[in-house]
Amino acid sequence: MAETKRIFTFLLRFLAFCTTLSAAIVMASSRERTTVLALSFEAKYSDTPALKYFVIVNAIVSIYGFLILFLPSKSQLWRLVVALDAVFTILLTSSISAAMAIAYVGKEGNPNAGWLPICDQVRKYCNQVQGALIVGVFSVILYMLLFLYSIHTALNPILLEKS
Amino acid sequence: MAETKRIFTFLLRFLAFCTTLSAAIVMASSRERTTVLALSFEAKYSDTPALKYFVIVNAIVSIYGFLILFLPSKSQLWRLVVALDAVFTILLTSSISAAMAIAYVGKEGNPNAGWLPICDQVRKYCNQVQGALIVGVFSVILYMLLFLYSIHTALNPILLEKS
Repeated sequence: MAETKRIFTFLLRFLAFCTTLSAAIVMASSRERTTVLALSFEAKYSDTPALKYFVIVNAIVSIYGFLILFLPSKSQLWRLVVALDAVFTILLTSSISAAMAIAYVGKEGNPNAGWLPICDQVRKYCNQVQGALIVGVFSVILYMLLFLYSIHTALNPILLEKS
Repeated sequence: MAETKRIFTFLLRFLAFCTTLSAAIVMASSRERTTVLALSFEAKYSDTPALKYFVIVNAIVSIYGFLILFLPSKSQLWRLVVALDAVFTILLTSSISAAMAIAYVGKEGNPNAGWLPICDQVRKYCNQVQGALIVGVFSVILYMLLFLYSIHTALNPILLEKS
């Protein structure tokens, strides 16, 4: 039973690592050159602070997710993991919210502020950003599950004594 | 000792309630009418989905924060509060990140997307949004503290037996 649980959480953590890594890579590789009214310009993620923040957070969480795959199951450090899972869940939530808010303006614009949507000009770029955000949502959900599981393990005194 | 702790958390929860309520009110009352090139327009929070989301989340958390002030200390519902604190901390983080991402574009613009800053035209509106965001940051910090304290209480079996 304990063995099944360990394999299950390992798989969940591996999946979470894959989603954050691919979200970071897809977002970081999003760029498109286009020409509007004889003016050539390039849309890329690093133009927008919110998308840069998204890439940085996902990259950091990927490194954390990768390292934690190799943490021995008997390690005392698992108690620290509850706190780290909480911190990274909150960071991921914050980065995806900021990126989504900006992506929404990019898609729909904000007529009252005079901000025009840019997705008609740079369709490929927009689709790539959207893809990264969808993967990002999955990574947030996975980290929330992992965090809930961490709390559950920490809350259960019998499991605590075992570890 | 238990009495001091109870008063301390009550004060913390009261403060958290005040900050979320004032963040919602300050943001919701932010509007300014201005004239640009003979065109009169009004800037208000409800034009921007991210700011609307900020107001809604802060209003919901205010109601939760208000109700919880009256929860008897012996209630079994305190175990549920750990989960609710987690949910609302994440919601607050998400709403303030989205609102900040948009407020940043409002202040600095995004030259690459052709979005001009609007804060020079509607200075009073911008300052009010900024004020709401600053109060919002405090409310997020307070809810994180409360959540950590909830976990700590739940993790401590001696306290659990007492309640």
